[in-house]
Amino acid sequence: MKLVKVYVTLKPSVLDAQGEAIKSAIQTMDYDKVSAVHMGKYFELNFEDYPDLEKDIDAICDNLLTNPNIETYRYEILEAE
Amino acid sequence: MKLVKVYVTLKPSVLDAQGEAIKSAIQTMDYDKVSAVHMGKYFELNFEDYPDLEKDIDAICDNLLTNPNIETYRYEILEAE
Repeated sequence: MKLVKVYVTLKPSVLDAQGEAIKSAIQTMDYDKVSAVHMGKYFELNFEDYPDLEKDIDAICDNLLTNPNIETYRYEILEAE
Repeated sequence: MKLVKVYVTLKPSVLDAQGEAIKSAIQTMDYDKVSAVHMGKYFELNFEDYPDLEKDIDAICDNLLTNPNIETYRYEILEAE
């Protein structure tokens, strides 16, 4: 079994309105040392192990988990028991 | 400067409806080796470094980034240039 952790973030050129709102909220809470906040999505997928897993993860990320126009992703494949 | 990466996930006892929907979608795409999907949130926060940073990150996570009734979080603090 494999555990795949996928991190999806907005491309740097795309305005991260949620991140900006969270940064303002943190500053309102008097934590003024924050200089930037970015918000993204996080997925954990459990898979049976097989040879083409990495290729299929790429396809799943491109076609389902992300919007390739505005988001990028990275992932790591770990052993799961 | 510090880069704080925060990972927010639902507690195991809470039904992850989004994760279930994504699992079904992946299976519909003929990737039948997937056995579980969990969806969460991912935040990147840039902070000036200061002694109480970790305590403040805990407070920010508890009070703003998560709903402690249904979510848990973990974070890592990295060096940023």
